[in-house]
Amino acid sequence: MKLQTLKGFRDFLPKEAKKRQFVINTIKQVFESFGFEPLETPALEYEEVLLGKYGQEGDKLMYRFVDNGGRKVAMRYDQTVPTARVVAQYQELAFPFKRYQIQPVWRAENTQKGRFREFLQCDADTFGTTSPLTDAEVIAVAIQALNTLGFSQFKVLINDRTVFENLPKEAIIVIDKLKKIGVDGVARELVEKGIAKTINDATSMIRIIEVKTLTETVTKIFSYLSSLGINSKYFEFSPTLARGLDYYTSTIFEIEIEGYSAGSVCGGGRYDNLIGQLGGKDTPAVGFAFGFDRLMEALEEFKLFPQELNPVKALVTIFSKELVEQSISICSQLRSNNISTELFPDENTALEKQLKYADKKGIMYVVIIGPEEIKENKVTLKNLKTREQKTSSQNDILEILRSSNSE
Amino acid sequence: MKLQTLKGFRDFLPKEAKKRQFVINTIKQVFESFGFEPLETPALEYEEVLLGKYGQEGDKLMYRFVDNGGRKVAMRYDQTVPTARVVAQYQELAFPFKRYQIQPVWRAENTQKGRFREFLQCDADTFGTTSPLTDAEVIAVAIQALNTLGFSQFKVLINDRTVFENLPKEAIIVIDKLKKIGVDGVARELVEKGIAKTINDATSMIRIIEVKTLTETVTKIFSYLSSLGINSKYFEFSPTLARGLDYYTSTIFEIEIEGYSAGSVCGGGRYDNLIGQLGGKDTPAVGFAFGFDRLMEALEEFKLFPQELNPVKALVTIFSKELVEQSISICSQLRSNNISTELFPDENTALEKQLKYADKKGIMYVVIIGPEEIKENKVTLKNLKTREQKTSSQNDILEILRSSNSE
Repeated sequence: MKLQTLKGFRDFLPKEAKKRQFVINTIKQVFESFGFEPLETPALEYEEVLLGKYGQEGDKLMYRFVDNGGRKVAMRYDQTVPTARVVAQYQELAFPFKRYQIQPVWRAENTQKGRFREFLQCDADTFGTTSPLTDAEVIAVAIQALNTLGFSQFKVLINDRTVFENLPKEAIIVIDKLKKIGVDGVARELVEKGIAKTINDATSMIRIIEVKTLTETVTKIFSYLSSLGINSKYFEFSPTLARGLDYYTSTIFEIEIEGYSAGSVCGGGRYDNLIGQLGGKDTPAVGFAFGFDRLMEALEEFKLFPQELNPVKALVTIFSKELVEQSISICSQLRSNNISTELFPDENTALEKQLKYADKKGIMYVVIIGPEEIKENKVTLKNLKTREQKTSSQNDILEILRSSNSE
Repeated sequence: MKLQTLKGFRDFLPKEAKKRQFVINTIKQVFESFGFEPLETPALEYEEVLLGKYGQEGDKLMYRFVDNGGRKVAMRYDQTVPTARVVAQYQELAFPFKRYQIQPVWRAENTQKGRFREFLQCDADTFGTTSPLTDAEVIAVAIQALNTLGFSQFKVLINDRTVFENLPKEAIIVIDKLKKIGVDGVARELVEKGIAKTINDATSMIRIIEVKTLTETVTKIFSYLSSLGINSKYFEFSPTLARGLDYYTSTIFEIEIEGYSAGSVCGGGRYDNLIGQLGGKDTPAVGFAFGFDRLMEALEEFKLFPQELNPVKALVTIFSKELVEQSISICSQLRSNNISTELFPDENTALEKQLKYADKKGIMYVVIIGPEEIKENKVTLKNLKTREQKTSSQNDILEILRSSNSE
């Protein structure tokens, strides 16, 4: 057997998978508390649903093939196009339609850039209303999700595409690089691309954008955000924010975490024409996507994962083959007291190995019932973190685990 | 845009997606409380990892193609083979390795039989021990999961493959049909296939199996199940249970829900040679898979889904464009009191339409703040189920929602 995953594809072993679930569950809970509802679409679609929707680059990176029935099919490339299909296909949806979608997508990216070919997308969008209230709500839900994950130093940079009115699309794409290559770099590129005649012209073009003031839309969004109780330290107007994707129509935003330099962890905006352009019915929309892998990385860097992602509180060890029943009995007693308990899954393993097993799985307590304990009608409880150990009655041990449970 | 999913592929709109999540979360919680940990593997593998592992039928139904880099790849067909790869590939796993995996798999099945081409598999297995304690544990965790989902009338039919010793594999496959086609049908097929000479011979062959008594392994498992506190109504010895898959080595089991006739909702057993045969290192294993779609169907039939799968307690409506801020303010107040609240996402929608929206999304309460309410410094709360309506102080309304929250 080839002991290898494909380039750009990853296994997530328990330690990592538990962290991923923690993040997914936290985000889902926040999304749902704001009224966003889950949507699932298939991994495979008719090729024609996806093809041509992501530009030439997208068509090139898409996983496409002919299935056994001769159908041309393609693997999910993002979650917006399938949602556009869903919005057009089903009449029973409640509009405005607030949905979130957290599923993997596949892109045959150049993995040398540290990109993956299978990665989780994490979208929340509202379809069917042009109200700036919705823009404020999606920004608020993103902030709430980051807060709930434990981030407290981050900023939503907000802009309105209309500040770029009269500028050609090409200029916007160049200006988007301001943070990366600075004013001089952007000015040079604007000249190189023939968008500005001289470096001076280009520089003043940038300066004019930099001093733009809040548009009417952004003013409203800011006011709504304040009414929603969002601390103003979390958002700011950023007239030079451009965002590469050319389907945004007005509001655009990105979230940067202070001290995390790999890039923004969230990007979004309003795209009122896209669903119609994709062949759905004309439907205004606003929303965002979290960069899941970046979020994971930032959480790791700032040590924001909870110490205890293991719901199992105690491992009941098996002292010897002859004493199995005693171990099972205490295990089921702990469980019936709502203490998540694991029973060591083998009767012929040395105790030391069982302790190592608990340690490896991050289980805090081990329970030991040997001949000594049985003689005295007691149980030994060992805390693997503090290395403390106590031999006491079953009830005492239960009490310790119960109180540790509610910490 | 083609407004259609591929045959055998499904969209899950919010209503259905929420039910799926409820089941997945419940099962995960139970699995984790027993010490099973999550594992994720990629949707695509090198073709050679999967090919030839599921028999001719499997190779035929597998989604395979050549990727942009010329690699022969295949889509996940089950979760056992990728796990076999993982078990062989990584040294850092804690053994015995208890993992669960809940991911979609893809099979180009004949959809006319009501089968899907994309469906969720839901596996829990322990790798690396031959202890019958583990057999008992996986059966116990399956029972616990069904209990937690709300099922109370079901039975685990347990058998040991060794009762078929001396019988050819072909006979086992025929005997597996006992429930479907009865003793006469099986006897006829045994003769047709040349396994028995006469109908009489075949019938007595079946009778001999039917009166087999518990093997040593099953006796032990039963005793462990009792010690684990499992009510004996939930399990029973079934000497004619065969299970089609020929990789099982001893314990086999299936779970049938009383009154649900579409078939067993869970199947599993011990397969001590499979991981080695798949090219992994020799690793004994025992586990099971829930039939996710059948579980969903049975839950629906027995009306076991909770009434309230919507975490949102109240929708704050927007009376008019002029009164938006008042609505936002009460919304954020409710949220800061931990009441999941949705704000209607548009300022220009008739109140009646907003109530319909809440109803469609299954939100129980709507909050209304119109000019009358503002004048009196009050808020109106309407229960959409009982149609009762009350105009009262913000604090009163908060109290009603809070107490309804903790129901």
